[in-house]
Amino acid sequence: MSTEAKDTARTEAFSDGVFAIAITLLVLELKVPHGHDGPLAARLLAQWPEYVAFLNSFATIGIMWMNHHHLFSLIRKVDHGLTLWNLGLLLGVSFVPFPTATLAEHMDGADGRTAALFYGGTFFVIALLFNGFWRHVTSEDRAATLLRHAREHEAVQAVSARYWIGPSAYLLATVLAFWSARATLGLSLLLAIWFAIPLRTSK
Amino acid sequence: MSTEAKDTARTEAFSDGVFAIAITLLVLELKVPHGHDGPLAARLLAQWPEYVAFLNSFATIGIMWMNHHHLFSLIRKVDHGLTLWNLGLLLGVSFVPFPTATLAEHMDGADGRTAALFYGGTFFVIALLFNGFWRHVTSEDRAATLLRHAREHEAVQAVSARYWIGPSAYLLATVLAFWSARATLGLSLLLAIWFAIPLRTSK
Amino acid sequence: MSTEAKDTARTEAFSDGVFAIAITLLVLELKVPHGHDGPLAARLLAQWPEYVAFLNSFATIGIMWMNHHHLFSLIRKVDHGLTLWNLGLLLGVSFVPFPTATLAEHMDGADGRTAALFYGGTFFVIALLFNGFWRHVTSEDRAATLLRHAREHEAVQAVSARYWIGPSAYLLATVLAFWSARATLGLSLLLAIWFAIPLRTSK
Amino acid sequence: MSTEAKDTARTEAFSDGVFAIAITLLVLELKVPHGHDGPLAARLLAQWPEYVAFLNSFATIGIMWMNHHHLFSLIRKVDHGLTLWNLGLLLGVSFVPFPTATLAEHMDGADGRTAALFYGGTFFVIALLFNGFWRHVTSEDRAATLLRHAREHEAVQAVSARYWIGPSAYLLATVLAFWSARATLGLSLLLAIWFAIPLRTSK
Repeated sequence: MSTEAKDTARTEAFSDGVFAIAITLLVLELKVPHGHDGPLAARLLAQWPEYVAFLNSFATIGIMWMNHHHLFSLIRKVDHGLTLWNLGLLLGVSFVPFPTATLAEHMDGADGRTAALFYGGTFFVIALLFNGFWRHVTSEDRAATLLRHAREHEAVQAVSARYWIGPSAYLLATVLAFWSARATLGLSLLLAIWFAIPLRTSK
Repeated sequence: MSTEAKDTARTEAFSDGVFAIAITLLVLELKVPHGHDGPLAARLLAQWPEYVAFLNSFATIGIMWMNHHHLFSLIRKVDHGLTLWNLGLLLGVSFVPFPTATLAEHMDGADGRTAALFYGGTFFVIALLFNGFWRHVTSEDRAATLLRHAREHEAVQAVSARYWIGPSAYLLATVLAFWSARATLGLSLLLAIWFAIPLRTSK
Repeated sequence: MSTEAKDTARTEAFSDGVFAIAITLLVLELKVPHGHDGPLAARLLAQWPEYVAFLNSFATIGIMWMNHHHLFSLIRKVDHGLTLWNLGLLLGVSFVPFPTATLAEHMDGADGRTAALFYGGTFFVIALLFNGFWRHVTSEDRAATLLRHAREHEAVQAVSARYWIGPSAYLLATVLAFWSARATLGLSLLLAIWFAIPLRTSK
Repeated sequence: MSTEAKDTARTEAFSDGVFAIAITLLVLELKVPHGHDGPLAARLLAQWPEYVAFLNSFATIGIMWMNHHHLFSLIRKVDHGLTLWNLGLLLGVSFVPFPTATLAEHMDGADGRTAALFYGGTFFVIALLFNGFWRHVTSEDRAATLLRHAREHEAVQAVSARYWIGPSAYLLATVLAFWSARATLGLSLLLAIWFAIPLRTSK
C-alpha cells in the first residue's frame, strides 16, 4: 500500500480556506446598479433573485462546511485517496459562485429552466462527492486506519444513514427545474435548513 | 439535547478566514479611473466618497473581528446553535462589500438617502446578529457549558452591558440617512472609533 | 551565517492561504453569458474551453498543494532562503489565474498557440521553482538543519528522484503548443493525474 | 490600565489571511487582452508595466509579510493598542492592489507621475505604520509585557536600528516620481530585494 497517513491539520486548514473564500466571493456576483435609470430602491429590490441565490448559496456552502467539519471530527488520519476526494469536494465548492451567478442572472427569463438545472445539478454533484468521500473513509479496509471510532460506532452510523439523502434530495431539486426555477431554489433552501438541524444520535 | 460541544479552534479559523477575505475584498470596489478625461490626480480625488466608504467598512469589519475575537476568548465550547449564529454573523460580514460599493457609487447623487439606508441597515442587522449570538451563549441553560467563566463574571457582564448599544447606535445611523447620507457615514465612523476603545472592566 | 531557523507553522499557514485563494479565484474567470443571444444551454456549452482550463488549473494547483504539503512534512525548520524560495513558488501559483483566463479566451482562435505557450510556460517556471526550493532544502550544508531526516532517507530520495520529471514534462507540454493548444492542455491534465498518484516509496 | 494581553495566535492567523489574500488578489488586476486586434503575443508584451507593477507589489507584500512574521517572533503578548496598530498595517496592505492597478494603467501616460506618487506614497504610509507598530511594542512601559526579550536584546535592537530606513527609502521612491514613474518602481523593486536580505545580527 502506497497510501500514507498524514496529519489532518493542514488538510482542514486548506479546506477551511477554500470554504471561507468561496462563501465570501459570492458577494462579488452582486452588482451595484449603475447610473440613474429610476430610483435606486426600486432597482435594488428588482434584483431580488440575486439576493435569494446569494443567500441560498451562502447557506448551502455554510452547511457543507459544518458537515465537512463534522466528518473531520470523526477522522483520525488522512491518506492519499482521502486528499484526492477532498480536492474533488473543494473543486465543487469553489465552483458554486458560477452557477449561482448564472441563476441570479437568468432565473426569471426564458433560460430560467436551464439556469436552475445547472444550479441544482452542481449541488447534486457535490452531494455525490461527499458520498464518495465518506465511502472512501468508511470502506472496510480503510476505516480502522482513518476513523477515530469503529465503523459500527453510533456517530459514524448516523452520518452513513443520512448520506443517501443528500444526492436524492438535490436530484429532486434539479429535476424540479423542468417545472420551475423557483421550485429548485425553494427546495434547495429548505434542504439547507433541514441539514442545519443537528443529527439526533451524534450528541 | 442534540447539541454537540465541539472544539472552537476550527470555527475561529473559518471565521478568521471570512473576516480576512471580506475586509480585503473591499479594495476590489475601488475603481481605477480609465482613459484620460482630465488629470489623474483630480479624478482620484473626486472619488473620495469611495475612500471614505472603504475606510469606514474596513474599520467596522476590523472592529467586528476584534469583538468576535474577544467573545471567543470567553467561549469554551461551540455547540450547534452557536455555529449557526456564527454563520449568520459571517453572512452579514461577507455581505458588507455590496452596500459599501452601493454607497460609494450613489452617496452624492439623488439616491444618496437610499444608499445610506441600505448601508446603515446592513450594520444594524449585523449588530442584531451579534446580540443574538451573545444571547445564545449567555442563556441560562447554555452558559455553564459554553462559557469559560460564570455568567456573573465581570468580563461576561461587561460584554452584556455594552451589547444593547450596538443595535441602538446603528439604528440611529440608519435613520440619519433620511437627513443626510454623510451623517450616516460619519456616525458609523465615530462608532468604529468608539468600539475600538477597550472595555474598562475587562482588563 | 545570518540564516535563522524559524518555526514552519506560519510559513505553511501563509502558503495554504495563497494556494486556497489562488485555487478559488479561478472561478471568477468563468463568465456568465449575458443577455439572450440564443439558448443559455448552448451558450454555456460553447464555453467548454473555459471549463477545461478551469478544471486543469484547479487540478494542477491542487496537486502542487499536495506536493507542497508533502515537502513540508519532510522539513523541520525554515531558514531565510527557504522563505524566499517559497515566496517565489507562491508568486508562480498566484499568477496561474491569468494564463488560465488567457487560454480560456483564446484557445480556439488564431492566438491559440500563443495562449498555450503562455499557459504551459507558466507551469514550466513553477516546476523550476519547485526544483530550486527542493535543491535549497537538500543542499549539502543545509540538509542537516532543515530536513527531518538524513539526505539519504528513502522519503527524501523519492522526492529528489522524481523532481527532474516536472520541468521536463511541462517543457514538453509547452513545446506542444506549437502543434496544438489542445495538446498542451491535454498533456497538462495527464500530468496532474500522474502527479496525483502517490510515490511508491514514500509509504 | 484597560489593555488586555491576549494570545498572539489568532492575530497572526488573521494577519496571515489578509496578507495572503492581498498578495493573491493582485493577479485580478492583470487583464486578458480581448478580441483580435493584432497578435496576442505582442499585446501581452505591451502590458509589461502591469507585470512589473504586479511583480513589485507581490515582492513588497511578501517582504512585509516576512517582516511581520519576524516581528511577531519577538512578540509574546498582544494588547489592545497593538491590535489597532496591526489593523492599521493590514489596512495599508489590503489597499495595495488599488495603487498597483492605477500605476499599471497610467505608468506610461501623461499621468505617470501622479500614479507613481500614489503608488510610492502608499508604501511610504505603510512603512510609517510599521514604525508606529514597532514603537508601540518597544515603548518603555509596554516592552516588558509585550516582548519576549528585553528591549536591549540584540534581535530587538537590530529591528529598531533598521526601522528608520523604511520610511526614508520609500519617501525617496515617492519623490522620485516627480522625475520618472519608472524610477519609483525601480527603487521600490531594489528596496524589496534589499529588505529580503536577512538581518546580520538576528541569527
